[in-house]
Amino acid sequence: MSETNTQVLLKQRPVGAVQERHFEVVHKPVPVTGPGQICVRNHYLSLDPYMRGRMSDAKSYAQPVAIGDVMVGGTVGEVVESRHPDFKAGDAVLGYFGWQLFGVSDGTGITKIEKGDLPLSAYLGVLGMPGVTAYIGLMDIGHPKAGETVVVSAASGAVGSVVGQIAKLQGCRAVGIAGGERKCRYVTEELGLDACVDYKAGSLSENLQKAIPDGVDVYFDNVGGPIFDAVLDRMNPFGRIPVCGMISQYNAVEPYAVKKMHNVLIQRLTIRGFIVSDHAARWVDALTDIENWLRQGRLKFRESITEGLENAPAAFIGLLSGKNFGKQLIKLI
Amino acid sequence: MSETNTQVLLKQRPVGAVQERHFEVVHKPVPVTGPGQICVRNHYLSLDPYMRGRMSDAKSYAQPVAIGDVMVGGTVGEVVESRHPDFKAGDAVLGYFGWQLFGVSDGTGITKIEKGDLPLSAYLGVLGMPGVTAYIGLMDIGHPKAGETVVVSAASGAVGSVVGQIAKLQGCRAVGIAGGERKCRYVTEELGLDACVDYKAGSLSENLQKAIPDGVDVYFDNVGGPIFDAVLDRMNPFGRIPVCGMISQYNAVEPYAVKKMHNVLIQRLTIRGFIVSDHAARWVDALTDIENWLRQGRLKFRESITEGLENAPAAFIGLLSGKNFGKQLIKLI
Repeated sequence: MSETNTQVLLKQRPVGAVQERHFEVVHKPVPVTGPGQICVRNHYLSLDPYMRGRMSDAKSYAQPVAIGDVMVGGTVGEVVESRHPDFKAGDAVLGYFGWQLFGVSDGTGITKIEKGDLPLSAYLGVLGMPGVTAYIGLMDIGHPKAGETVVVSAASGAVGSVVGQIAKLQGCRAVGIAGGERKCRYVTEELGLDACVDYKAGSLSENLQKAIPDGVDVYFDNVGGPIFDAVLDRMNPFGRIPVCGMISQYNAVEPYAVKKMHNVLIQRLTIRGFIVSDHAARWVDALTDIENWLRQGRLKFRESITEGLENAPAAFIGLLSGKNFGKQLIKLI
Repeated sequence: MSETNTQVLLKQRPVGAVQERHFEVVHKPVPVTGPGQICVRNHYLSLDPYMRGRMSDAKSYAQPVAIGDVMVGGTVGEVVESRHPDFKAGDAVLGYFGWQLFGVSDGTGITKIEKGDLPLSAYLGVLGMPGVTAYIGLMDIGHPKAGETVVVSAASGAVGSVVGQIAKLQGCRAVGIAGGERKCRYVTEELGLDACVDYKAGSLSENLQKAIPDGVDVYFDNVGGPIFDAVLDRMNPFGRIPVCGMISQYNAVEPYAVKKMHNVLIQRLTIRGFIVSDHAARWVDALTDIENWLRQGRLKFRESITEGLENAPAAFIGLLSGKNFGKQLIKLI
């Protein structure tokens, strides 16, 4: 076991784009396991767009990370020492230890993972928060019906890739939006969506028109901004828009202003923002279905793995500009 | 009986503000009552903001009025001749005969009104489409709970005035937004709302802050535009926004762009556009409650009555800029 607990702290709050100078990498002693506690060696750290919100002290649904604190984040790892009756050394656990190699906990919010055929890292992606987010947003807010058209942005990402595939499993026509030809090819050829619009190529509005000539019934929004506006203008009557993220806006100093809101009235649309943690009652259903689909080979996922915690800031900055391809993870061991 | 059927036709489609030249007043013979038909002498014509949409051929939820056709609109009147088994001369009826003195119909969409203590004109307002719109939008989309704060724009208007009063009847704190001190005084002193913000006086954002220090749980939007944006920025978590109208945008050539959409995600808001005609199953419930409240004296309403069909275009233009005070009607007899 390393004797050092490497950590990434929030050093400064970014205004606009996140830069490496907003973080600080420090090396601390491995924390002592107190009575009733466990010490966990993290194997993977999840990087997710919501973390940009926690770096800011603007009003949001969660408290910001304090300056000098360890950045928050989901982790999977192994119990290395246990003074807690429910855990023993060697247990695989899903936790929320943040950007650090080791963490201690009294067990609150720590979930044991039954080691099986699925890789530990999957519990941070398709079998974790992003997968459940996709499931709940699409199923409970999007209410897709067979034969309808579902559009999802950030379609090759951790959430979007699951949304598109579940839409197909529901008998919908599924169309992705992604950045670049390589991601778009992955979305159609690997994930099996019916089409994918490259928002970096040509006129978004014209390309959407071609890919979805019959309009959109469900738009699962991960990005906000001009893509939201363009899809808003192509919604069918009684369309639903689960708003899961607005990654295009997280670094923005001036927010994008939405021009096509009249469609909300004309088409009687429902736009609904959601945060997966508000829907705890549905996690078990979501994970049960997702795990079944995975074992049946009906759900695919892809990971972007960066090695070493010291590279997490650069990987996170890349994630915010779409440089990742699939679920972005940091390998810690 | 007059021998002439005065009508107002759509002469030209407006681009931007509606003007009198977009209409044409004509005098035609009273239509002949065919077999199975009734002829109705209209007493009141309802003027409503939705009519602006029908003057345009932009994509909308309903067909536009054709150039040269009679403008559409709700009417109440009296059967003057009946060749239909279910109607007799003298029956009071609610219909959709449009901007004209007489209309013939095979009875489709015509509702007999039991003459009672409530004035016939009320069936175009509080006991008609605007009242039902207020009820369904607030109750079924807004889901107000006792103790919550409900904000309604165009609060002295045909729909808004009913929304605010129903919100009070549900045990909510109700705050109106209206234009001018006289309307605001009516909203608080006559309708009994807890506060009213005059959007024409001072800083809307500051005045909203003062009137709703604890934020907004339900915002019933009749206006869109900058008022929508300002209230969007003051919504509480899990707030609901029934979008009923966007009167600020109907004459706009360039739509207002909404800047505060990030609140949809941060506060997990639901924004839902609706058209009352999509909710036919709830009309009877709505009218039953509204009629009971009226008879109990718990619901007040106000009418702006303009005499003479030839004055309808000017009254309609006034309605679009908020010159009316309460339900705008044209008295035809």
